[in-house]
Amino acid sequence: MPVTERPPLEAAIVERVHASFARQGAMATLGAELADVAAGHVAIAVPVEPRLSEQHGFLHAGVVVAALDSACGYAALTLMPDDAEVLTVELKVNLLAPATGDRIVAEGEVVRAGGTLTVCRGDAYAEQGSERAHVATMLATMVRRRGD
Amino acid sequence: MPVTERPPLEAAIVERVHASFARQGAMATLGAELADVAAGHVAIAVPVEPRLSEQHGFLHAGVVVAALDSACGYAALTLMPDDAEVLTVELKVNLLAPATGDRIVAEGEVVRAGGTLTVCRGDAYAEQGSERAHVATMLATMVRRRGD
Amino acid sequence: MPVTERPPLEAAIVERVHASFARQGAMATLGAELADVAAGHVAIAVPVEPRLSEQHGFLHAGVVVAALDSACGYAALTLMPDDAEVLTVELKVNLLAPATGDRIVAEGEVVRAGGTLTVCRGDAYAEQGSERAHVATMLATMVRRRGD
Amino acid sequence: MPVTERPPLEAAIVERVHASFARQGAMATLGAELADVAAGHVAIAVPVEPRLSEQHGFLHAGVVVAALDSACGYAALTLMPDDAEVLTVELKVNLLAPATGDRIVAEGEVVRAGGTLTVCRGDAYAEQGSERAHVATMLATMVRRRGD
Repeated sequence: MPVTERPPLEAAIVERVHASFARQGAMATLGAELADVAAGHVAIAVPVEPRLSEQHGFLHAGVVVAALDSACGYAALTLMPDDAEVLTVELKVNLLAPATGDRIVAEGEVVRAGGTLTVCRGDAYAEQGSERAHVATMLATMVRRRGD
Repeated sequence: MPVTERPPLEAAIVERVHASFARQGAMATLGAELADVAAGHVAIAVPVEPRLSEQHGFLHAGVVVAALDSACGYAALTLMPDDAEVLTVELKVNLLAPATGDRIVAEGEVVRAGGTLTVCRGDAYAEQGSERAHVATMLATMVRRRGD
Repeated sequence: MPVTERPPLEAAIVERVHASFARQGAMATLGAELADVAAGHVAIAVPVEPRLSEQHGFLHAGVVVAALDSACGYAALTLMPDDAEVLTVELKVNLLAPATGDRIVAEGEVVRAGGTLTVCRGDAYAEQGSERAHVATMLATMVRRRGD
Repeated sequence: MPVTERPPLEAAIVERVHASFARQGAMATLGAELADVAAGHVAIAVPVEPRLSEQHGFLHAGVVVAALDSACGYAALTLMPDDAEVLTVELKVNLLAPATGDRIVAEGEVVRAGGTLTVCRGDAYAEQGSERAHVATMLATMVRRRGD
């Protein structure tokens, strides 16, 4: 991932994303990890394992969506003020190819950041060794909520 | 659920859905279970547990989507020939309220069954005791693949 | 349409919807008309004409979407305060059958009304004589803006 | 648009797209024109005019969607065999900013071309003089039908 081309991010924001991610029981249950946190861009990796499969042995679409949704939500969060919280309003995703290989990397990117609503694009890639296949593409709307 | 109003389904089809569901590692990992299988309609229940949460403690949107996606896919499968397999082409979902309570019931219903493509609607409800709240609504497109 | 089952609406709100609809140049260009205005529900009819067709002679998907989008937007508006304006955040639609016949009736219905965001469902029907076919189903998110 | 970077297209396919476009009554009614036809990419321009507006004077979302839908459909068609016809299965779009200015250019691009289903992305830009603003982004699924 071309991390070096993205604008740097304050350490405090990176830390906030990591702390929030660590509170997501679902991410731990999926074995997901934060692979990249940059301004307006977050990547999350999920291993392809039988315990996360659908009936044909591929990664379940819901797992791919979970990773994409979190990647998009955190991408939005990186561009928000300190006290903000993010909720998903809606998402839509096309599944392009079976999610297989070693792991799936879900990348979330801000398309348009607004005061209340942020629109993100998510793309998921199946990685096996040095190969990378585009397996899903998403559009999502995030809403900013004031934090507690 | 008004099961009695739905057309009866051949036992062989119900069995096929249960056998396929049992092969979904992801459904077992989520603790999901088949709550209803009727012609063109399938319901799946998922417990609300910290290990499936997002950062605010609600059920992760990806978990809700996983249950809705499987419910829609199996709803489509109930109306297909014996040798058919179902894959999700795309899905889109609005999250209406936090997914909380005791469990989430995801109901998938066929809107239009075609030879190749089937369109489904999914609705997820949060149940707590006798209360039921509408927490998500989905539209999804399923494609029929010939089985192996 | 079961108008009588819907809650009555203040005449001022009905009038507001009609006045706003009359300002939509696109609705006039499409020959669209308001067929029903009730609380949380609005129907718009569009004639099926060659000048609105796609290349196979059916009503263009964009025309169906235009009618559904306006129906959903006004359905949302009926439940908002006097000074509110509505904008479409996003919409997603499945086209179920060719839009043909005499006219298309697009019905918008509020699924969940919130302070800022309202989620609507839209369904379009092709009418020919006494026959009615379901040709499209939509989910849309509307945002309230304060009026001028 | 970086036309020069796209693979060249057989003249017969370009002609097919133009002939099909000319049969779309809706495109003529909207005053739309084909701005670019390349392999897997088609652009359609629509003028911003009061007769195509919504109630605030911006181009109606349905008009933007109509242009994006046709651009995506023809982008898919450029990669299909001679006897193919394209129908829209579903589309979803986020509206990012008011569609205003001199004209809207809707660009459709193939994300994944399959034997039966093709997934496209569409992006609409509002142009005013030399300025260009991103006003909408779409994902759409197209299905190939054998032509008559």
